[in-house]
Amino acid sequence: MSTAGLNMSRRIRRTPYTDRVEYHGVKGFSVVNHMLLPKAYKTSVEDDYWHLRSQVQLWDVAVQRQIQISGKDAYRLVQFMTPRDLSDVKIGECRYIPVIDENAGMLNDPVLLKLADDKYWLSIADSDLLLWAKGLKVGMNLEVQVDEPDVSPLAVQGPLSFGLMSDLFGSNIGKLGYFEFGKFEIFGKKQIIARSGYSKQGGFEIYLEGSSYGGSLWDLIWNAGQEYDIRPGCPNLIERIEGGLMSYGNEFTRSNNPLECGFNSLCHFGKNFDYVGKSALIEIAKKGPRKKLCGVKFGGGKTPPCGQPFPVTSKEGLPIGSVTSGIYSPRLKVNVGMSMIKRGYWGNGTQLVVHTPDGMAREGVVSKFPL
Amino acid sequence: MSTAGLNMSRRIRRTPYTDRVEYHGVKGFSVVNHMLLPKAYKTSVEDDYWHLRSQVQLWDVAVQRQIQISGKDAYRLVQFMTPRDLSDVKIGECRYIPVIDENAGMLNDPVLLKLADDKYWLSIADSDLLLWAKGLKVGMNLEVQVDEPDVSPLAVQGPLSFGLMSDLFGSNIGKLGYFEFGKFEIFGKKQIIARSGYSKQGGFEIYLEGSSYGGSLWDLIWNAGQEYDIRPGCPNLIERIEGGLMSYGNEFTRSNNPLECGFNSLCHFGKNFDYVGKSALIEIAKKGPRKKLCGVKFGGGKTPPCGQPFPVTSKEGLPIGSVTSGIYSPRLKVNVGMSMIKRGYWGNGTQLVVHTPDGMAREGVVSKFPL
Repeated sequence: MSTAGLNMSRRIRRTPYTDRVEYHGVKGFSVVNHMLLPKAYKTSVEDDYWHLRSQVQLWDVAVQRQIQISGKDAYRLVQFMTPRDLSDVKIGECRYIPVIDENAGMLNDPVLLKLADDKYWLSIADSDLLLWAKGLKVGMNLEVQVDEPDVSPLAVQGPLSFGLMSDLFGSNIGKLGYFEFGKFEIFGKKQIIARSGYSKQGGFEIYLEGSSYGGSLWDLIWNAGQEYDIRPGCPNLIERIEGGLMSYGNEFTRSNNPLECGFNSLCHFGKNFDYVGKSALIEIAKKGPRKKLCGVKFGGGKTPPCGQPFPVTSKEGLPIGSVTSGIYSPRLKVNVGMSMIKRGYWGNGTQLVVHTPDGMAREGVVSKFPL
Repeated sequence: MSTAGLNMSRRIRRTPYTDRVEYHGVKGFSVVNHMLLPKAYKTSVEDDYWHLRSQVQLWDVAVQRQIQISGKDAYRLVQFMTPRDLSDVKIGECRYIPVIDENAGMLNDPVLLKLADDKYWLSIADSDLLLWAKGLKVGMNLEVQVDEPDVSPLAVQGPLSFGLMSDLFGSNIGKLGYFEFGKFEIFGKKQIIARSGYSKQGGFEIYLEGSSYGGSLWDLIWNAGQEYDIRPGCPNLIERIEGGLMSYGNEFTRSNNPLECGFNSLCHFGKNFDYVGKSALIEIAKKGPRKKLCGVKFGGGKTPPCGQPFPVTSKEGLPIGSVTSGIYSPRLKVNVGMSMIKRGYWGNGTQLVVHTPDGMAREGVVSKFPL
């Protein structure tokens, strides 16, 4: 285990899979929701990219903590937390929902799972959304429980995941539509498995309830995956940028609104229901957002790592944004990135310049997702 | 810079001092409040310990983010967030306050600064307390603003800090009582400096407002500190355990109540004011807490690092707690640690056994702080 750069303590929680991840030679972690997220194994990001596109990988994504909202007022609270209309969500369905504050600033972009009419999970990105939900609950005096249950998602991603998961859990799993979930028996207990994941290569997420099963679940999939050339993996930077999968804290923060993130179609502006930040969001919509998240392709050879945002200027040298995630794509043979781009410059094909910390000014172009 | 174990991205924010910290050869980081906290430089923890006790160190503690609560209902919200009676807090004073949820579970243990009758800062430990404050604000429809201002604390800790800080900011700074703050001119701007810090060796925290001054402030103190043998440093594990300084997420979490943490004297049970979790806390107080945070000394030679809690048993082998922070003290010549200890076993001098991951059962004893 190489953790030279990250000091371990109980405050940065291990997951039920961390032992296995260490066994497989994890080389780096990030920290998300006070928990360890593997970021690199023995193979390169490029090698992992090709593998993910053709085979199957096992990802410890237990950092995707579940905020469980249950009880009489559960629906009322969940709908109050998002501009997205949830009236048509059925039990067994997932929804990607922006969560905003009173100024329409993004607080998180979780995946909602409807478990029952009075029970929801929010599978969160990196912020303590539990505190937001609890604060609203207490402040509004709602009859709900807000908890973080002992649920630790394990992702099986890549095109061969369908064969592998059918082998293990039966052919019914192949009938799940995208963003649908079902219950499947694992070690004698019904567990939620969704057709979802933080890649565009297809796959599943097992919402394992009960940390003590972690090692056994990992081993079960690992062993069955041998004939599919399974590898330990993690969200792949090249693949997620090409696919337009944003990361909260990287591409957008509380200082961004959902329209800047391109979530227009997820925002209800009518009178069907009220939600936090609605009036602020309506004001923003009237004027239109001042910047918008865009894909960017840029040249100049392989970019250095994007540890800090790269400034982006127009061809004339005006600041128009900054690349918040960026890396070289071996498939497209060009650097790919994501950047909020100023109004007037966000049109597809607009030329721009990306300034990397090696001092290079790299010519680039605004590009639609998927890149 | 050694960051092999921690992958960098914008999501894990750099501080205004990170450039300087890297220049000084930082060897490891932790992540607190989505931001980098230096954890080791070129010298050992033991060497730093002795230095901190006798000289002066400069610590990048910008991870102590400020949650600013301001406006007409500011006092009402702040008092609603803590069991501690704030009615006697004067402008220019700090208070250590437990913040609890509706079940009396600890959400954070910030230091409160009263800047004005309608303006407070909460200098937070590792959880997004902003979301809790905002949730209450929105839910209760309060007239307050809740923000994270551009404030980045820089700590000057150790006995020689008094001389150094007087050289820089005048003799008035020596008149600050413990947990008092004043405003001092730095680069033409009034900045808050408090006599406080995450050590028991004395010192100050500069609440620098304006990230752009970060490098210059670091340099100012660094240069003036040369005659005091100043070093770059960070919260020292040996020193903080000996001093009984707890760490949220390590020693206690949301599953602990303030009585378990030993905050009895900070909890108001009378009728003077209402706060979140009051009725739950009163119930707990009636029965008395079932465990309590204690100091522990244990032998068997230098303990391995406490990356995961060490189980603690009674002499008879019953589980009675777990050491959540632990390390060898070169001064006491014994291992020191902190553990929640079960009722019946928390008396000073009670013998116990600490089980470290090297397989050793180490004899120990419950010990009062400071160790």
